[in-house]
Amino acid sequence: MNCIPTGMSAMKGGEGPDSYANNSSFQRQGVETAKALINEDIAEKLDINEVISSSKLFNIADLGCSVGPNTIIAVQNIIDSVKLKYQSFCHNYQGALEFQVFFNDIPSNDFNVLFKSLPSDRQYYAAGVPGLFQGRLFPKASLHFVHCSYALHWLSKIPKELTDKTSPAWNKGRIYQANASDDVREAYSAQFAKDMESFLNARAQEFVCGGLMALIISCVPDGSSVKRFDLGFNDLLEACLNQMVVEGVLSEDMVDSFNLPQYQPSKQEVCSLIERNLCFSIERMEPLVRPARKAGIAPSVEMAILGLRAVYQEIIVGHFGDDMTDELFDRLKKKVVDSDILSQSTDMSWMLELYVLLKRKVD
Amino acid sequence: MNCIPTGMSAMKGGEGPDSYANNSSFQRQGVETAKALINEDIAEKLDINEVISSSKLFNIADLGCSVGPNTIIAVQNIIDSVKLKYQSFCHNYQGALEFQVFFNDIPSNDFNVLFKSLPSDRQYYAAGVPGLFQGRLFPKASLHFVHCSYALHWLSKIPKELTDKTSPAWNKGRIYQANASDDVREAYSAQFAKDMESFLNARAQEFVCGGLMALIISCVPDGSSVKRFDLGFNDLLEACLNQMVVEGVLSEDMVDSFNLPQYQPSKQEVCSLIERNLCFSIERMEPLVRPARKAGIAPSVEMAILGLRAVYQEIIVGHFGDDMTDELFDRLKKKVVDSDILSQSTDMSWMLELYVLLKRKVD
Repeated sequence: MNCIPTGMSAMKGGEGPDSYANNSSFQRQGVETAKALINEDIAEKLDINEVISSSKLFNIADLGCSVGPNTIIAVQNIIDSVKLKYQSFCHNYQGALEFQVFFNDIPSNDFNVLFKSLPSDRQYYAAGVPGLFQGRLFPKASLHFVHCSYALHWLSKIPKELTDKTSPAWNKGRIYQANASDDVREAYSAQFAKDMESFLNARAQEFVCGGLMALIISCVPDGSSVKRFDLGFNDLLEACLNQMVVEGVLSEDMVDSFNLPQYQPSKQEVCSLIERNLCFSIERMEPLVRPARKAGIAPSVEMAILGLRAVYQEIIVGHFGDDMTDELFDRLKKKVVDSDILSQSTDMSWMLELYVLLKRKVD
Repeated sequence: MNCIPTGMSAMKGGEGPDSYANNSSFQRQGVETAKALINEDIAEKLDINEVISSSKLFNIADLGCSVGPNTIIAVQNIIDSVKLKYQSFCHNYQGALEFQVFFNDIPSNDFNVLFKSLPSDRQYYAAGVPGLFQGRLFPKASLHFVHCSYALHWLSKIPKELTDKTSPAWNKGRIYQANASDDVREAYSAQFAKDMESFLNARAQEFVCGGLMALIISCVPDGSSVKRFDLGFNDLLEACLNQMVVEGVLSEDMVDSFNLPQYQPSKQEVCSLIERNLCFSIERMEPLVRPARKAGIAPSVEMAILGLRAVYQEIIVGHFGDDMTDELFDRLKKKVVDSDILSQSTDMSWMLELYVLLKRKVD
């Protein structure tokens, strides 16, 4: 139903040691942390009478599901919670409620691996839905619960001003918005606003009244979106690419025209965009608080590089081709070792994982 | 929701010259031939008032869809016909009817390639559904139209008696039912009956009342199921495998334990199984009559081998491993050249492609 812009890339597919499926423990911890909030919200805020029709079907979608255990875990948790709620409401519950789960991601996602990893004893009907979640993916009023974690910061496209040499938002030598000019940050922010608007408009049509949507959004703390001075992984990646230009390994043009299609908004931006849409009420909006890491235990360099590679490799190969990937990630590894980024990351104050629960209002 | 037995294999995936997507023109001609029948049946036998609920959603499933253009063509034809019917019934039709299409095949099907080949301007919501169609795949009363072509002759499993040396149905030296003992044919027939029963029971639950199901089933003409004396491709394949045993390339045990998981029933068998099920009325049952081939034009040997390989390769690799495949198909090619099978195949009197239209009865 919707066309995928060139340049969009999925997480690294397959089942190998470098796959996203095997290198998404960071995201998994986030999903695990959100479990308690989702359970609480389903128990308190899901009005079973309002959302379930006579067909006794409960449709769940995981948008931007990717591949690996995270989506399976998230979906199972939602089903368990809804069953509990339904049983408490309907005492003669005898498996009468059926669940259908739609796993969505862009068509280049590795659905083959996702399908093979579905539990054979699952108590739900499973379907894969290829497509961009900024557009319509489902029939009208067909969804009861949507889950979307660590996906909304991926933009549907790179704002075109970033690669236009005549634009004040030309992002020369940079691959991202942090520490870039105001024009660049505004271009990113505007694209995020457009995407979020499309996302909410599409869901508004697809949801039944009273349907719930749980979002985990990678954000920056309020105030820090304007300028960020700390060095993140993206800055190290940018430094590696620029070094490769200096050494003649990559052309300057290739690096100047490369920008990451992601934007971490502030909580304030997210809040305004949802309020402007008018179709959803904000039932909860709070930072996800992960259990504290044990003091002194930082993630290993190998794990961090594998995790980054699983997320970024396809984007990088799509722009630069396949030949330079190993070299780039070797350089990145050295930069990570030389920096104090991993020990810094134990406090995680530089990022905000925002948990948002929305309810579809009655029209 | 259902577990896939080991030994089941999908058509050859990918987009390469040896893929099923590029070597299924035989099946495509069948789907094209059935178009007129489906259009007629939708116009005459689909009661829009009966099947469409207030949600104005029309759900279509293509079961055993595989990969390639055939499933896309079949589905688009159904949508066009239903739209026509709906417009004739509802004069102020303004795109009010929405279509959702479920593409189903076993999880080892190449859904990645299928998803990439979906038309970007499609006017339906698409979803892939991995699973065995002999089991439940969809929620209760959720389907309005099902299409299933060239898929029902694939058995969910090999009848276990065939590989049991102590059983009278041990299929020594044979890979199929043709020209085999009565016990072997009965074992195949019984498995087909079980599979067809499960298929119809699952669909009976998934269909709305009045929903239609169009089936194209590879059959043998009535009477010929008992014994078939003409040499088909399977017989040539069997001869190649046995030759490889004689030459010491393959072990006798490996060939004795190999059987093709497919059974072409007679029209009479199909008819009895549907009638016994009680949930569907047979609205039409007739042979598919392909346009006559121009005299003397037989398919080329290369095309025939590519077509067979696209269908059989995964099954053969699954049993024998990957090393012998090229050699086997080289041998098969020589056998095809030496036989008159291709010139014989222009009359096609040895096979029956049965078109069946079923309607879900009111309970």
